[in-house]
Amino acid sequence: MRVRDFGVTPGRLPTGRLNAITDVAGVKVGHSTRIEGDGDWVEGVGPIRTGVTAILPHGDSLYHEKVSAGAYSINGFGKATGFEQIRTRGQIETPILLTNTLAIARTSDALIGWMMAHHPEIGLTSGTVNPIVGECYDGFLNDARGRHIDQTHVWNAIDSAAAHDVREGCIGAGTGTAAFGFKGGIGTSSRIVGDTYTIGALAQTNYGDRPELMFLGVPLGQHLQNEYLPVVGAHSQQSYAPRGGSIMMVIATDAPLDSRQLTRLASRAAFGLARTGTVSHDQSGDFVIAFSVANRWAHKPTALAQSVPLVPEGGDIMNSLFLGVVEAIEESILNAMIAATTMIGRDGNILYALPHASLIYWLKHYRRME
Amino acid sequence: MRVRDFGVTPGRLPTGRLNAITDVAGVKVGHSTRIEGDGDWVEGVGPIRTGVTAILPHGDSLYHEKVSAGAYSINGFGKATGFEQIRTRGQIETPILLTNTLAIARTSDALIGWMMAHHPEIGLTSGTVNPIVGECYDGFLNDARGRHIDQTHVWNAIDSAAAHDVREGCIGAGTGTAAFGFKGGIGTSSRIVGDTYTIGALAQTNYGDRPELMFLGVPLGQHLQNEYLPVVGAHSQQSYAPRGGSIMMVIATDAPLDSRQLTRLASRAAFGLARTGTVSHDQSGDFVIAFSVANRWAHKPTALAQSVPLVPEGGDIMNSLFLGVVEAIEESILNAMIAATTMIGRDGNILYALPHASLIYWLKHYRRME
Amino acid sequence: MRVRDFGVTPGRLPTGRLNAITDVAGVKVGHSTRIEGDGDWVEGVGPIRTGVTAILPHGDSLYHEKVSAGAYSINGFGKATGFEQIRTRGQIETPILLTNTLAIARTSDALIGWMMAHHPEIGLTSGTVNPIVGECYDGFLNDARGRHIDQTHVWNAIDSAAAHDVREGCIGAGTGTAAFGFKGGIGTSSRIVGDTYTIGALAQTNYGDRPELMFLGVPLGQHLQNEYLPVVGAHSQQSYAPRGGSIMMVIATDAPLDSRQLTRLASRAAFGLARTGTVSHDQSGDFVIAFSVANRWAHKPTALAQSVPLVPEGGDIMNSLFLGVVEAIEESILNAMIAATTMIGRDGNILYALPHASLIYWLKHYRRME
Amino acid sequence: MRVRDFGVTPGRLPTGRLNAITDVAGVKVGHSTRIEGDGDWVEGVGPIRTGVTAILPHGDSLYHEKVSAGAYSINGFGKATGFEQIRTRGQIETPILLTNTLAIARTSDALIGWMMAHHPEIGLTSGTVNPIVGECYDGFLNDARGRHIDQTHVWNAIDSAAAHDVREGCIGAGTGTAAFGFKGGIGTSSRIVGDTYTIGALAQTNYGDRPELMFLGVPLGQHLQNEYLPVVGAHSQQSYAPRGGSIMMVIATDAPLDSRQLTRLASRAAFGLARTGTVSHDQSGDFVIAFSVANRWAHKPTALAQSVPLVPEGGDIMNSLFLGVVEAIEESILNAMIAATTMIGRDGNILYALPHASLIYWLKHYRRME
Repeated sequence: MRVRDFGVTPGRLPTGRLNAITDVAGVKVGHSTRIEGDGDWVEGVGPIRTGVTAILPHGDSLYHEKVSAGAYSINGFGKATGFEQIRTRGQIETPILLTNTLAIARTSDALIGWMMAHHPEIGLTSGTVNPIVGECYDGFLNDARGRHIDQTHVWNAIDSAAAHDVREGCIGAGTGTAAFGFKGGIGTSSRIVGDTYTIGALAQTNYGDRPELMFLGVPLGQHLQNEYLPVVGAHSQQSYAPRGGSIMMVIATDAPLDSRQLTRLASRAAFGLARTGTVSHDQSGDFVIAFSVANRWAHKPTALAQSVPLVPEGGDIMNSLFLGVVEAIEESILNAMIAATTMIGRDGNILYALPHASLIYWLKHYRRME
Repeated sequence: MRVRDFGVTPGRLPTGRLNAITDVAGVKVGHSTRIEGDGDWVEGVGPIRTGVTAILPHGDSLYHEKVSAGAYSINGFGKATGFEQIRTRGQIETPILLTNTLAIARTSDALIGWMMAHHPEIGLTSGTVNPIVGECYDGFLNDARGRHIDQTHVWNAIDSAAAHDVREGCIGAGTGTAAFGFKGGIGTSSRIVGDTYTIGALAQTNYGDRPELMFLGVPLGQHLQNEYLPVVGAHSQQSYAPRGGSIMMVIATDAPLDSRQLTRLASRAAFGLARTGTVSHDQSGDFVIAFSVANRWAHKPTALAQSVPLVPEGGDIMNSLFLGVVEAIEESILNAMIAATTMIGRDGNILYALPHASLIYWLKHYRRME
Repeated sequence: MRVRDFGVTPGRLPTGRLNAITDVAGVKVGHSTRIEGDGDWVEGVGPIRTGVTAILPHGDSLYHEKVSAGAYSINGFGKATGFEQIRTRGQIETPILLTNTLAIARTSDALIGWMMAHHPEIGLTSGTVNPIVGECYDGFLNDARGRHIDQTHVWNAIDSAAAHDVREGCIGAGTGTAAFGFKGGIGTSSRIVGDTYTIGALAQTNYGDRPELMFLGVPLGQHLQNEYLPVVGAHSQQSYAPRGGSIMMVIATDAPLDSRQLTRLASRAAFGLARTGTVSHDQSGDFVIAFSVANRWAHKPTALAQSVPLVPEGGDIMNSLFLGVVEAIEESILNAMIAATTMIGRDGNILYALPHASLIYWLKHYRRME
Repeated sequence: MRVRDFGVTPGRLPTGRLNAITDVAGVKVGHSTRIEGDGDWVEGVGPIRTGVTAILPHGDSLYHEKVSAGAYSINGFGKATGFEQIRTRGQIETPILLTNTLAIARTSDALIGWMMAHHPEIGLTSGTVNPIVGECYDGFLNDARGRHIDQTHVWNAIDSAAAHDVREGCIGAGTGTAAFGFKGGIGTSSRIVGDTYTIGALAQTNYGDRPELMFLGVPLGQHLQNEYLPVVGAHSQQSYAPRGGSIMMVIATDAPLDSRQLTRLASRAAFGLARTGTVSHDQSGDFVIAFSVANRWAHKPTALAQSVPLVPEGGDIMNSLFLGVVEAIEESILNAMIAATTMIGRDGNILYALPHASLIYWLKHYRRME
């Protein structure tokens, strides 16, 4: 179920066919999901509620046909990797992976392994590779200390990536995450800009305090301050429920933008995020990666100069692209929350799904829905 | 008139006594306003609809008792000056001035003059001075090419600054500006954080497309898409009305924060701005300056080290300070729009005030007001 | 006289025909120089030792045919203006001006005036304009508080700009500046990269402590620690001589680079600067602006996308471009110091020229010269 | 052997007692070195020429007593991790590790493991942890694709860290690295600033083209262009020798500086690096981490404000601290090159040690040595 299934229409721009990041031609998404075990927490054993999500700008070799990209930190309390090289070189050369915080390094290691397996020249004759991985913390439900991601899960997420994927909620890197004290997860959306370009977004939500939640302008968090709160299991060694947290956001487009322009697009994700009511918390890793599939760049270019199309600065389309980002990010987040289902994790800790009936009630109350 | 006079309460935190940036102890605000002439535009003559607004972190010598500060660019299509040195040294040493775009340099020159007049050592024995000036474009109503700001207006704004100032709307640097195609201007607000600290905000609004205007969660811009639009005078050489544009935002606090932390606070202004519906336009100069009055720094310190209080990272108060910024920025903008009155400028161009009756109607319709 | 006239060859790459920034096709340079009065300082009267230097990326309308640019701050204790918009939009649309610190605002105002005089649409139908101005402090010799730059000097510098200009030393914005306690000034140099591209550099030097001066690897400052020191005039109200200070650096190229790449080039100016022995002082405004004349951009583009050549990342040419920047910056600085002549300024304060005989002696001593 | 053993004195400031980063009170350094196997390369087997170097700001729990830090990217073509959080929070909370490029993720994973082993609250009740790891590529000598670093090596490097360590050359993360086509490695140095503060530096060198090498102002690379070049083994699948590459630099101080000031210090490493002749290559990951041991910060502070000493801006000491950084970085690099010994690696590839006799010859020739 997605937000538009309630009969509401977030934003003003039309969506792509799937209303997903995979509406950008060639983009593929894949997930590995681990939901294993129940009951009391045993470090290194479980219960496990985590996963990996992979976003591929295209299905060919990203190492040999790199795409332009930008990275933006809204609040950098997070462990995302690969941003220094994006900022310097303006390109990405691997799939973008999302996972849980403490597993980011072994996810990154598995991504390096995947790249080496597909490119025997890496580390030998062609230099190295810059893995791009983001993360949110899912330790309220998941045995985070167990770092339950290994090469199999990572490679599966990449290898199973498909161009039509619109799966959302408790899947992949969103398996164990929260949002405003509800169950969060993966969400996606897209916009068509100027009849020409597509903006796609995908979010891994794990942020937000309950009271601040705004849903399409409705102060939902105020009304649900004391309902469906996270439940801390009787034997849990953790006495508090999730507050604040992080969000990873990925933006794809087919508009021919350079790295600087993509970074500008990435910065607009903050405006979509803000529409959901948050203030980007102090200990939140709120990062954005934006890429364009329009131009491809060789690993070792031979020509001195390469002619490429670029959106010129000063035209009207930039504002529309910004609006597309803001709307697609907001709707990705709403979709993640609507798709996510109640999940019981380690020690019996519970994150409840956003109650659809309450949502409908308040949307109607505030006349945002018939 | 201010937004709370309608009986609505933006946000959750309490305001300071005046609900203004001047609630931060010692902060002073002053304005010079020029509203002169009517009718057809004569370059260099008028009509004039512009001014200067001055924000003083304290009433003593800012040169000799500098305050910690941070600067943040949300979208840097603007001419704000002084940011490089803020970023390097983490301090400001002059009043912060706001004015119109093409007059920024002569405003800056007059500020240098004011500083030299009060400090005969500048340029002689103590080095130079870093003037801080921001701007918005007011040329739809104002003879912008005339650059109608001289030393008198600048010095008056500074010298008349007062600690209790809460004037808003078409005053000072907000005299000729717009907001979402309505008349914009100066607005201010404040928040009390944790019973301890005060956050004050002041905004010079000149941004926003009509359809995107959100007012406390209500899609006001959608309903007023075709009403109270800017009127282009019959003889105007300008065939278009304001779209997009800029916003200058100033944040004051008495929380003891260093420059890095103040820059983090400044970045949260984007979240307050986003609540009004905008996406930060391509050609918008959306800048934020944040300062703390808690610690003062000498021009030529003699001690090797100085002991100062600082808010430690990792505590709970940072999130509350962020929320204070977001709420105070949003309410400053709403206050600016409510206080602003319809203004006729050059060539008979008109910007209408936000119609209070319509606002009330839609706030009630969406149940945001009784 | 220039550094190569001594028979030494800084660096490994060949220079352009003029060994000047004007070797980049189309680039023009102009100066206004004010050397007026002698004797005791009278504020607002003199003596005057200052000026303006203008660098034009091309001789057509920069407003309508903008060029890609990047800006970089090595140490941002300075008042350079226009950088925010360069970073956001990646372009410059005015001549680049250099002047003295306290006169930067009126120089910027005069530049706005020049742009408006040539473009009646500015401030009316086409938005505003982003003036680019940098500065160094020349108040040891000059009546800096007098801010002796007005519209005439600025416009003359721009209007007299010529494509073959190689004037150096005590001219334009370098009239009153220092370098390592010697007389500094304007210097320029160029490099040919890969038989294809040209890198041009121009520096306004006003930085450096005497002991740190390195000249082509020779520790000249160590040997001249007590010679040719600045002389403080008997009646001077300033009891200290210049230490530290600032440097403005401008880099031009015909290599088709985008703003991000030009910013990378700009960052390499630090490596040329470092070769002269400095550490970039605490209170130094060390800024770099880099632009490419290869692609031109309209003020209001009509096409959705524009096809442009770009140097692809990953090729070998980037390293050569970096080397070109480093060598051209170093030689620009050396040229400025060699061309500058002893200057007596306000209150009889004196900055001595770098003594050529001493330079030759130590270059020979250290076997850097036959 | 170290550079001062030749009787030359790089720079003007005095060194600390050990002339090492461990002169900063409390700082500890440890290494794990892997030199295993010879002959033809077998992927995943060897030969192995790699390692890990650990720098600990102090010997207590860094998680519970964090230190202020800054991170700086000179050229971000590298995979260093943890910088986003340093920039946002201004602190580090783990040892700083250095290793080889493709092993960075598993080194980071082992560091997470080490932190969790020492802090059972991580991932459970206290949030997560931000591992700081840098890297250089050592694949000319090492089976880089084998990623021969596991938890044992990482933990050993940390656990064996000692306060008096001054080991240099082919050790730890410098085991397999190069410098200007010679064998590179680990180097360290220190400076005493103003009789009060200590600056320590440690470098992992893997950068530089032979012709650009400057050694204390002597153009050594020019004279050794064709000598002691890297030897590509007969069966090597790699047809080229190292050019360009990366350098990781770590700066420690006991001066009480905040994160912004430490970032300024970090930026000055470029000036020390530049003294060795390089231009920071296009595909170089040239990163700097600077930390201060003067103030410690709790993981969960309870007080609203904490009083700390800070070096005030505007004093004279900042320039001396900058000079300390520049000199300590330059000497660290020279020490690394002098200490490194000739190493034969995979496929018989050889990196020669900088020939001391040639160095002495040219230092004497250019009169930099008696």
